[in-house]
Amino acid sequence: MTPTGEKPRANPRVERTKAHVLAVARELLLEAGPLDLTYTAISNRSGVTRQTLYRHWPTREALLAQLVLTSPNVAYPQANVDPQRVITEFLVSLRGGMSDPPTAAALMTLAAQADRDPASSQALSDIATDRRLALNTLLSKTGIEVDAADFAVLCGPIIYRLLVARTPVTDEFIRWVVTGWTTRLDRRQRDGDS
Amino acid sequence: MTPTGEKPRANPRVERTKAHVLAVARELLLEAGPLDLTYTAISNRSGVTRQTLYRHWPTREALLAQLVLTSPNVAYPQANVDPQRVITEFLVSLRGGMSDPPTAAALMTLAAQADRDPASSQALSDIATDRRLALNTLLSKTGIEVDAADFAVLCGPIIYRLLVARTPVTDEFIRWVVTGWTTRLDRRQRDGDS
Repeated sequence: MTPTGEKPRANPRVERTKAHVLAVARELLLEAGPLDLTYTAISNRSGVTRQTLYRHWPTREALLAQLVLTSPNVAYPQANVDPQRVITEFLVSLRGGMSDPPTAAALMTLAAQADRDPASSQALSDIATDRRLALNTLLSKTGIEVDAADFAVLCGPIIYRLLVARTPVTDEFIRWVVTGWTTRLDRRQRDGDS
Repeated sequence: MTPTGEKPRANPRVERTKAHVLAVARELLLEAGPLDLTYTAISNRSGVTRQTLYRHWPTREALLAQLVLTSPNVAYPQANVDPQRVITEFLVSLRGGMSDPPTAAALMTLAAQADRDPASSQALSDIATDRRLALNTLLSKTGIEVDAADFAVLCGPIIYRLLVARTPVTDEFIRWVVTGWTTRLDRRQRDGDS
């Protein structure tokens, strides 16, 4: 599916094209919803050929995953020696990303088709790993590392409230989730899943 | 949209028809995915007219919500005086429900369209409230009541792992989530959102 011999490089023109396509895909997700986010629709609106779209994103799932990871709303946290501060800022940034409707729709579309479609399932798993590694990079000065179980306990309540229960996530709620987790850092009693 | 004068009652024939339609909708969700779960497709496969479908479920979102709430995989917990036991069994039952692919697809489809579609957003919020009230009914002998923030901290990590990060939820992980929550029952320091 991906033509060889013309690999995308960090070339400013290519990056501009990709950013333009992602912006168009966000517009279409807002206007028409995930069902109508086809490569034909994106190509018509963006003026970028379907062939080029397939070169950058061999599958629609790859495009949806990149929409999630390049959410425009994210005020990205800084590394710090205080783990509580880093994690709180990370969850505030997660709230910002998930409050962006195209980002939320892209993530939930992958989740809606994941049991039937291995590419969606893999994209979701990659997003979760990517975000957890990003958090651990920010935490590198603290000596604390967040494993997959910790990450679920921290991010799960935020994502559940925003995207499933459809209730606001307050700063207070984020603080409550973070303090709950940090107070039990010392007495881990669970399976060491990765 | 809903014809009046012939309201659905708890009539065995009507209940059989509804159960048959829900079973057909589950099959279609598994085979073709949420995009193709149309009333035409359900009507063709089930032999139930579109008019009858609209009478029972005025919107596709109402049908998706009922698919979530009638998940076949759920070993429903019993009321008990031990809150830790009730909550653990409730989360085990949640894991069972979310491990059923049509149930997961129905929930995530609602979530994927919720920012664009108020009916989906309302259905999700109703599902969350319904499940929280069900848990509180099971907890009624314990004197403990779970509010929306508690419910997010308990269910969010399970749903996140299964449907977003796509990793298994072990009994050990459930126990860890429950003990983390029960140990902080006494020192609540968050906003009393409902």
